[in-house]
Formats: sequence, C-alpha cells, structure tokens
Amino acid sequence: MSGNTFGERFRITTFGESHGAAVGVIVDGVMPGVDIDEAYIQRQMDRRKPGQSSVTSPRKEYDVVHILSGIFEGKTTGTPLMIILHNHDMRPEAYQDIQQAFRPGHADFTYLQKYGIRDYRGSGRASGRETAGRVAGGAVARKLLERRGVQVLAYTTAIGGIACSSFDEQAIEQNAVRACDPAAAAAMIKKVEQLALAGDSCGGIVECRVRGLPPGLGEPVFDKLDAELAKAMLSIGAVKGIEFGAGFASASMLGSEHNDQMNAAGFLSNQAGGILGGISTGQEVIFRIAVKPTSSISLPQQTIGTDGQERQIRTEGRHDPCICPRIVPVVEAMACLVLEDQFKRQAAMRS
Amino acid sequence: MSGNTFGERFRITTFGESHGAAVGVIVDGVMPGVDIDEAYIQRQMDRRKPGQSSVTSPRKEYDVVHILSGIFEGKTTGTPLMIILHNHDMRPEAYQDIQQAFRPGHADFTYLQKYGIRDYRGSGRASGRETAGRVAGGAVARKLLERRGVQVLAYTTAIGGIACSSFDEQAIEQNAVRACDPAAAAAMIKKVEQLALAGDSCGGIVECRVRGLPPGLGEPVFDKLDAELAKAMLSIGAVKGIEFGAGFASASMLGSEHNDQMNAAGFLSNQAGGILGGISTGQEVIFRIAVKPTSSISLPQQTIGTDGQERQIRTEGRHDPCICPRIVPVVEAMACLVLEDQFKRQAAMRS
Amino acid sequence: MSGNTFGERFRITTFGESHGAAVGVIVDGVMPGVDIDEAYIQRQMDRRKPGQSSVTSPRKEYDVVHILSGIFEGKTTGTPLMIILHNHDMRPEAYQDIQQAFRPGHADFTYLQKYGIRDYRGSGRASGRETAGRVAGGAVARKLLERRGVQVLAYTTAIGGIACSSFDEQAIEQNAVRACDPAAAAAMIKKVEQLALAGDSCGGIVECRVRGLPPGLGEPVFDKLDAELAKAMLSIGAVKGIEFGAGFASASMLGSEHNDQMNAAGFLSNQAGGILGGISTGQEVIFRIAVKPTSSISLPQQTIGTDGQERQIRTEGRHDPCICPRIVPVVEAMACLVLEDQFKRQAAMRS
Amino acid sequence: MSGNTFGERFRITTFGESHGAAVGVIVDGVMPGVDIDEAYIQRQMDRRKPGQSSVTSPRKEYDVVHILSGIFEGKTTGTPLMIILHNHDMRPEAYQDIQQAFRPGHADFTYLQKYGIRDYRGSGRASGRETAGRVAGGAVARKLLERRGVQVLAYTTAIGGIACSSFDEQAIEQNAVRACDPAAAAAMIKKVEQLALAGDSCGGIVECRVRGLPPGLGEPVFDKLDAELAKAMLSIGAVKGIEFGAGFASASMLGSEHNDQMNAAGFLSNQAGGILGGISTGQEVIFRIAVKPTSSISLPQQTIGTDGQERQIRTEGRHDPCICPRIVPVVEAMACLVLEDQFKRQAAMRS
Repeated sequence: MSGNTFGERFRITTFGESHGAAVGVIVDGVMPGVDIDEAYIQRQMDRRKPGQSSVTSPRKEYDVVHILSGIFEGKTTGTPLMIILHNHDMRPEAYQDIQQAFRPGHADFTYLQKYGIRDYRGSGRASGRETAGRVAGGAVARKLLERRGVQVLAYTTAIGGIACSSFDEQAIEQNAVRACDPAAAAAMIKKVEQLALAGDSCGGIVECRVRGLPPGLGEPVFDKLDAELAKAMLSIGAVKGIEFGAGFASASMLGSEHNDQMNAAGFLSNQAGGILGGISTGQEVIFRIAVKPTSSISLPQQTIGTDGQERQIRTEGRHDPCICPRIVPVVEAMACLVLEDQFKRQAAMRS
Repeated sequence: MSGNTFGERFRITTFGESHGAAVGVIVDGVMPGVDIDEAYIQRQMDRRKPGQSSVTSPRKEYDVVHILSGIFEGKTTGTPLMIILHNHDMRPEAYQDIQQAFRPGHADFTYLQKYGIRDYRGSGRASGRETAGRVAGGAVARKLLERRGVQVLAYTTAIGGIACSSFDEQAIEQNAVRACDPAAAAAMIKKVEQLALAGDSCGGIVECRVRGLPPGLGEPVFDKLDAELAKAMLSIGAVKGIEFGAGFASASMLGSEHNDQMNAAGFLSNQAGGILGGISTGQEVIFRIAVKPTSSISLPQQTIGTDGQERQIRTEGRHDPCICPRIVPVVEAMACLVLEDQFKRQAAMRS
Repeated sequence: MSGNTFGERFRITTFGESHGAAVGVIVDGVMPGVDIDEAYIQRQMDRRKPGQSSVTSPRKEYDVVHILSGIFEGKTTGTPLMIILHNHDMRPEAYQDIQQAFRPGHADFTYLQKYGIRDYRGSGRASGRETAGRVAGGAVARKLLERRGVQVLAYTTAIGGIACSSFDEQAIEQNAVRACDPAAAAAMIKKVEQLALAGDSCGGIVECRVRGLPPGLGEPVFDKLDAELAKAMLSIGAVKGIEFGAGFASASMLGSEHNDQMNAAGFLSNQAGGILGGISTGQEVIFRIAVKPTSSISLPQQTIGTDGQERQIRTEGRHDPCICPRIVPVVEAMACLVLEDQFKRQAAMRS
Repeated sequence: MSGNTFGERFRITTFGESHGAAVGVIVDGVMPGVDIDEAYIQRQMDRRKPGQSSVTSPRKEYDVVHILSGIFEGKTTGTPLMIILHNHDMRPEAYQDIQQAFRPGHADFTYLQKYGIRDYRGSGRASGRETAGRVAGGAVARKLLERRGVQVLAYTTAIGGIACSSFDEQAIEQNAVRACDPAAAAAMIKKVEQLALAGDSCGGIVECRVRGLPPGLGEPVFDKLDAELAKAMLSIGAVKGIEFGAGFASASMLGSEHNDQMNAAGFLSNQAGGILGGISTGQEVIFRIAVKPTSSISLPQQTIGTDGQERQIRTEGRHDPCICPRIVPVVEAMACLVLEDQFKRQAAMRS
C-alpha cells in the first residue's frame, strides 16, 4: 500500500490497523513557532470517537492524543509532528467469526484480492478507525487555518430519507446526529434507533461550508480546489459521491440560471459553490457528500467464504447504525488538510 | 501554476493556452515496445474536436496530432512521448471585448485574483482547449489498457432535464449528443438547438463504465480508485459532482439494500459501483458526473469590469450550447489515465 | 520541514528529535506476505547504536524496535509499517550550556535562521539520532532485497589519513572501525583514541558495494541510480562528497583508460562503478563517501551566541570521535532504500 | 522511463531524443508577471551549443529557442512554459554502424537491458543533447534567481591532469575550456587538441559557486540543499562524483581544522561549503564535480554486438574530446533549478 500520504506541502502520512497496537499520523510541513497542544487536538478526536450517543457505536476507543515529536516548549519547530493514539478496548474475538467470510459492503473481499493476505480483525487498515489519524492531522491544519481566518464547518443535512429544512448552526453540535435542523434531527435519531433495533443501517448527506477563504486559492489544472476536495472526500470509506454548489442539479439548469452574475458588491449567487476554474472566488465554498449506509448490519446476508462456499453472515459487533455524525469531523479534517496544503502551494507559487 | 501534472507512475504534464501557439502533453511512464501511432491518437482527438454537429461549436481546431519524441521505428522506447497540437483558427479579436470584464461562470475573475495577470484570449489556460492534451495523453493510456483487456466507455445520460431511459451502447457514437438512448438523444438535440438559438445553454449527466478490470486495483488509503477518479473528473472544467454506483441515492437507502451480497457466482448487485474500500471488485466500475451548463452564453448578464465598474456582458463567439458530447472523450481519457497509473502502482506494490 | 520523506514507491517518512519522546519511521510500499520481525530490524539497529566500542560514544540509546502496524500474524500485510524507538538515557542538562551559542560545524545556526526556533537539546532533529529511523526503514528494504538476491555492504576504507590497503570482507564487522583491512583498522583505532583524549575528532572514507544487481536498474533522466544514491548519501549529516567507480580520479583519465570495454564474458573493468547512463550494468555497484570529522569536539572553539556576542565554546557530552563506524549501517540503509525503490519503479515501468 | 521530471514546486519535465524531431522542456511553477523572453534563454543555450571552438564538437545544433506557452504580452502568466528546440543537422547515418554494437562508456548496453529496445541514433534519450531542455529550464530559474539576488557561476578547474592555480572570474568565458585560470586554460586547450588528434578524450573538474544565498535555504532531512544538488549533478551524464567545501579532503582533517568557527562578523572559514545540516549558512555555496572523459573516442575498443559476438568499435562522429566547457552551463542550469525550487519550498514552509 502506498497511498498512505496525503498533501504536497502540508502532508500527512497515517498508519495503523483497527486492532493493532496503535493508529496515528505524521504531520509534515507545519509552520514553526505555532502553539499546538494535545488538548487542542484531543477536542477534535473527541468529536470523532464512538460512544457519544445512542446513535453511535458503544465501543470505547478513548483516542488519547500523544504528540511524540515536532513540539519544543509548547511550540512547533518546523519538524514533523508524530501523533499516536494507542488502541484499547479491542475485542478481536468478536471478529473471529468473520475471519473466513467476506462481509457485504466491506473491503474484505477486495483487500484479499489485492494483497493476498488480510488482517480480518475489525477490518484492519480498512476500518473507520484509520480516520483517527486523519482527524489528528486535520486538527493541526485547522489550527493553522484559524490563524488565516478560515473556518470549516460540516454537518448532516439528511439521514435515512429525512432532510433538514432549516440551517441552525448552533444546533449542530447539540444533537446526536450533528444535523443543522433540530426538528429534523429528532426525527433522524428516532429513525436511526429503530433501524439499530432492526439490525439495519442507513445513509445520509453531509454538507460542508468553508468560510473566510480569500479568492485565488486552488492550483489548476489537475489540482483544482474542487478536484483536491473531491479526492479527499472520496478517500473516506463510506462516501459515494460529492457535489459542489448546485451540484447534480446543475445538470438540469440553464446557463442563464447557473452562472453567478456579479455587481460591484460581488457575486449575486453561489451556484458554483465558491469555486470557478478550480480557484476560490472568495465566497463560501460549499459541497455535499453522499454517505452510504453502514455496511455492518446484523441482519443475515448472503455471502461466500474465503473458500468460495456460499454462506450467510450477520455482522455482529458494536457498529454505528448511521455513520453521518461521526463522519462530520472527518470531513472537516480532510477539508482542512486540503486547504492548508493549497495555501502553502499558493505561497510557493507567488514566491 | 504547478498542478499541470497528473499521475504517479503513468504521468502526463500538459501545457498550452487556448490562443497560444500550441497545446500538448508529455506522457511519461509508457511501457517500451508498444505500437502507438499518430492515427490512433488522432481518432480520440477527433471525437473531442468542435464542429462535429449542430450541437457543438463551429470552431475548427483541427487538432492534428504530432508525436515528437518517445517513438522509434513505430514503437515506444520507454522515454517520454511529447505530443503537440498546433493552434489554428484562433480569432482573438472575438475575445477583445471581454478583456476588461469578467464573464459569469468563467475563471476570469479567479485567475486574475490568483495570478494578477490574465491571458484573456479565449480563457487562456482555463479554456476547454486545455483538455486536448488530456485526450492525447489519455489515448496513450487507452492503448495500454486495451492490452490489459480493459475498456472505458462514457456517454451522456441526461441533458437539459431529458434523461435516457434505455442503454443502447451502439447508439452512443451515432448521435450528436453521445447519449445511450437514441430516442432521448433526438429530444436532447432539439432542446440544445433551441437553447442555442435563444443564446442560452444547458447542463447534463455523463456516465462512465469501466469493464474488464480485475479485482484488486486501487491504492488505499488516500489514493483509492474512486478518490483518484473523483479528482480526475472534478479537474475537468465544467464538472460539478461525481457519484459512484448508487451514489447520492445511497443516502436514502438501508444497509440491507445497499450492501452487495455475494454467492458462488459473484456479486448479486452493484450498488457500490464496482469499488469496495477503494479497490476494484472485478465488477463493472460505474460512475456519473454532473456537467454544468456552458458558461458562455450570448444572453446579457450582469458583471463587473476589471476596474470594478458594473456592466453587462454577452459572451459572443462560437461556443457549445451543451458540453456533454464533447466532455465524453475527456471523461474517458481521464479515466484511462487513472486506471493505467493504478495498474502500474499495483505492479510496483506486488514486485 | 517537509523533506522527511524519501522514496517514491518504497517510501519512508521519519520523525523525532534527539531528546524528544521517540524517533521512528513509517515504511510504506512494503510487499505483502513477507516475514519481517522485530529481531531482524533490531540487528541492524544494534550495528548503529552508540557504545559499541572505545571509538564510539558511550551513550546508551538502546534503540529497542517496536513495530506498531503493518504486520499480521508475523507477515507484512501491504499496509504501512510504523516502527518506533523510544528515547532513553537523555541528559538534556548536558546541552543546556549550548542553548545560547552556535556550535561550530553543527546545524545550530542554520536551523535558527531557517525556523526561527531551535530545539537545542542534542541537536534536535539535526542529530545523528535521526538516522535511527532510516536504519529501521532500511532494514525492511534490506529484507526485501535479500529476496531479490541483492547484497549491500559498506565499510570504512580510511580514517584520519590512514587508508586500507587490502580488502578483507570478513574483517569488517570484527573491528571497531568497520575497516576492510585489519592492520589499518588497528592503526585507525589507535589514532581515534588519541584524538578522543585530545578532545579532537577526525574524518574518513566509507565505501559501499552492491552485489547481485541485475542490469537495467535505475530511472533516467533525473532519477538515475547514481543520482538517487548521491542524494541519499548526501542527506546523511556528516557526508561531504560521493564518487562512483573511478570517481574523482576520472578527471585525470583518458577516455581510452576510463571506458569499460567488453568481451563475450562481460565487462573487462569497472571504472564506471557499475552504472552507465544512470542504469546498472549488472556489475558490482561501487561508490565512496567522504565523511567529515565529528563536529562535536571538546577543544575550545570561537563562536557567537544567539545574542550575536562572541564567545568560546567546548562541546562537551558523549560524542563519537570518528563517525565512520556508525555511519556504515546508515550508508547501507540508505542504499537499500534507493535500490528497493528503484526495483519497484522498474516493475511499474515494465508493467 | 519516469524520471523525466525534476523539482517539486519549481519543476521541469524534459523530452526528446538526440535524433528525434525536437527536444525541450515544460517549466512549471514559474511566478506570474515576470519578463522572460526567448533571447534571455537563447543566451544560455548558446553557451551550451557545440561548435563553439576547437575543443568542442563541430556539430551545429543551433538550438533556436521557441516558447510556445505560458507567456502573454511578454510576461509569464503562472502557467507552464513549454520551450521547444527543433533538431537539425542530424546525420543518423553516422550512427548506423553502431546500431548493432555497444559503445564502451555509453548507455547502449544498459538501455537495451532496461527497455528491450534502443533508439541507437546518437544515443537517443541518453545523449548529451537531452541537456538542452535542462539548460532552457535552468535559464528560467536563473532569471527568477536574479530577482532574488542569487548568482550561480560554474567553471573548469582541471582538465586532463592540468589544474587551475588562480581564480580569475573574468577569464572564464574568455577561454574555450571555461577555466578560471587563463594560463592553465592555454595548456588545457593544447592538451585537448592533442588528444582529439589522437582519437582520445579526457576528463576534468568543474567547480560551482553560488553567491547571494540567504541563510536558511534547504529542506532537511532528506531534501538537504547539498543532497538535492548532489542528485542534480549526478543526473548529468558524465558526472562521476561531487564534493562540497573541503569535500574528500575532509576525510583527512581534524574536527578542529574542519569546523568553521564564527565571530561577530560571521564565519571565519568555509570548509563546509556554505551548508550546515543541509541548510545554507549565508556564505558562498561551493562544490566541485568530477567529469569523466568523453566516452566517444575514435581509438579502437573491444566490445560486443547486440548478438553477443565480440568485435572492435571506433566511435566516429563529431564529439567533444573534453566535455567540461559544455557541461559548465548545464551545471549552472541544474544548480539554478535546485535553488529556485528550494526558495519556493521555503516560502511554503514559512507560509
């Protein structure tokens, strides 16, 4: 595997398996002289951890942040930050029944095809646990973006067919599904709890807004801001699609509707989602991702074993019936990583 | 700008502006000993060129392929192919009226913000003309994929709200919008012609299928097959979204519906779009992109000049009222580039 | 700092400071299914550690290898190996007197100029301790090269003006300076001990031979085998030069002397050092590096403080009076990293 | 081949074979708004071209510079510059006798081993002609470095055993071997002319000084300034070694001699060659390279054919009996590319 590094000038490399000794990240390219402490990163980790509510997995990962390098007397030195999260509360026995069978919707089959060997304990490297390193690295990027006046905010807009119809920013971290509409959130939670009882799961939509971006960010031709964000988001396990601004609705629009006209005060609309020609316009950047239903369900499913024989499987264990609330901090982390990298690339270009 | 290179082991670097002397591409990482001639590449270029029908721009770009390096006695040598396409039929005067104003939906404003200088002639580097180099490079990748038994096929599934309701592969190259449903194609063409007369434009959906992929292709964690395809597609000018398999519909599905179960004969469905955990399953890979309406319309639009003064603009010139048919070969080219690169990365991993 | 990653398809990223909590490495691109255990890596670490003899620093680093990811049931899985070495026996107080002054020959001055902040404890990231991660990563590469039948062997050929005049491969690991001539080794050791007593240090020459390389390895134009080896070696702290084959002596040779002629049995000589046009010939690859005298000496030296004031400094602490014996495993590690990466790049090219 | 790109943020990709249609380069990462014209680049190309004197090949390459992209109204736009040099005066027939035999000292054997196919015309991609693209790209970097107050100067210090004993900067471009000592230059020229008549060739030493570098340039750990320069220089065909500052002489020095002490006015010496810990000290950066004798000689040499049969070969054609004077602008070009890239990487780090 050699796709474990993300970014060019602000770069993370993650490591670790779900049930190995630890997961973590090396963050390279951090500006020297910045105050970054473990508590700051811990706050982001805590938003990602399981066991936060009835709609997330009761597993306790703890995710206690340890920074082992790159900090001297509380400040970054310009050398790489190594952030480690030791694994705890692992119950590999819970996964032993799936050692010899492929769970539908999981990467079990494809990893075995690719590598000829598979760490079957809790999905190994393909586990959502791998995102812990992303969130830690993203927290460092977030800190640097704060200094630039840039804010990244993600939240759930739909779960299981229930969509938000209002945008209340304050409500987001106040409900268990991190939805932007408290009324919808209540319905979503009820739905997710019912599905959990039924042994099923559901998907949703997460939206992300970036505020405070200056115009000019993004590196055409291939490394457009939207292209890099798309790669970042599709690299998250459960994400099946992304759209910017009007997105797929653009396909049914006229040019006269879709074009964002301007007057002396700026743009009159934001169908483009804050990006033109791959470069930020200075407006809010806005995109949405499609999150598939959690693959781990306890309903019986048809599959085959590693021996090719047909069998049924129930994915037991402690899983999130809907991954949206926990994917929100991962989306933010990945967006922060893309943005900080683009700022640095821009500085290089202009130098 | 330093995002002009795409790929790791199979890599293209493109150059050129819409109204400069030439556009083109350096293709690096081509296996030695392969028969690649200009005619093979020319066929792909001809699919992309304007002036093919009533629904594409009447501009004549010609796009005559010249390979200036990397071929010896008709075969690749393992050294980089430099493919150049000299520019012709440029009418910069047609663009002079937009020298001092920002066209809505175009990158005029953002390029000036980023670079402080703007080659305003036909959008310069931000022009769709830049994709000529991609198609040339993608044709080389296509040739190599043919040897691997991999086929990449893109086509229009919706334009201006008219959707295909059947899939007739033979029909695709037989109609001017490259739609997979001949009946829908007729309606689409009529709609586009009406919009062109009205000085407006419309968007659409393009779908892409990859056949013959073995299971195991794709490099997790960050360089997942779907993540790389997403970046590739969003790097194309007019693309505003991408979805794999069930895509955004996944958000409303249950896990028990979305998971692709298996029996001894293989997968029973393909909601995932042929990719699990970022690695190909061996099924057809399928994704769709949202294409925005062409930004260049001749209806009057409100904008500002480079002096900040408000003004109206009509984007005259010879433009495609819907870019879908011409984006089809670009989508295929980018997909080919991603796939060939992933094959090479896989070979390195397994070595 | 963002030069902490080395290699393209076989890639290491190192982290850690001399007196931080730990140093280590993430090794990415390791083939799955290979038996790699901590003991194998530990053997290479032990060759690098201080305190091995009278001519190396009496510091005890221990360097106990822990592999925290990428191994499952004793075999590599294709996911990144994270190898950590916790720091021990740190005496930061020994360095406090140099907090406010720049040690001659060290990176103190330049790091402060570059970063505006300096982890002065034992040189921080610029410490030789940083090479521990390289040796751990190089050990993984060495294991993979063994499977390819490739052997990398480095040894001292000169120290303090005393040169080896014979090549006895068995003697190398039997003497404290890792010289290839036991008689010269005895003289070298005596000289180094005298210099240590006098508070001074000396330099030397280390030679490296690579055996078992097939012809064809190396990626022209810029990533020639010798170019990559040169970068790898010059990235080691104390290295001030490198030469391949006849090296600097080539400058005084005639073409008729330098050209390696061939007969049916192969090359008749190896002035080129086993590389032509940046690609291996199939002969032994041979190169030498110039190692400067250890910068840390206890003789008084003139310097300035961080306040710009002139002062004298004696670099106390436990240092190697000659770094050659301990640089030998680092040279081998870096050579292994380059070679394994080139094998993988070759596999990609040929795929 | 996929080592045709050099640099991270200031990046060149070269293409072309000796006897193909053209050679050239794409230069990516050029700051927008800079005046760069073909005449500026042409001046550097003219320093590299053959036929300048009795000691260089009488071939006429002309090397007329054409910039086909990235310039608008005389200024860079931030998009990639494509610079092409069409090939002329090719006499492939002169090479046909070597189609079936490996020339000693050339890459004929290794290219065939690597690629299984060989463009035998004038060494194809392995020809010195490939450096034309480097010099064109390096000229762009040189222009940008001028704006930073950085000057790169290379010159010959020894040829065929005759060494310069003085440094007269004005003399360098006034003599045919580009030596820094006019008296030594006269002896060198005489020697080279004699060797040419005898059908032989000789090597030499080229030194390079970089002035005006601020302290702080260079990216540790692996991408140290000296490491990147070493890679750049060893990527030039005939270079067999490099040393910085005291270089190989360091191996016989004491720490008390080698360490560059400081007083309030700065460093008291420059044994290190202006680089400590891989970062510039603000002093002159100085390094030397070993240049092997030209491989093409007309004296008979023993070799084998592609059929494995033994035979004699005389490399006829028009070759440089000593490559030093023509390698000087290539050394400068590669140094400029490294430096400009490091400036940009530094800007990214500090942003």
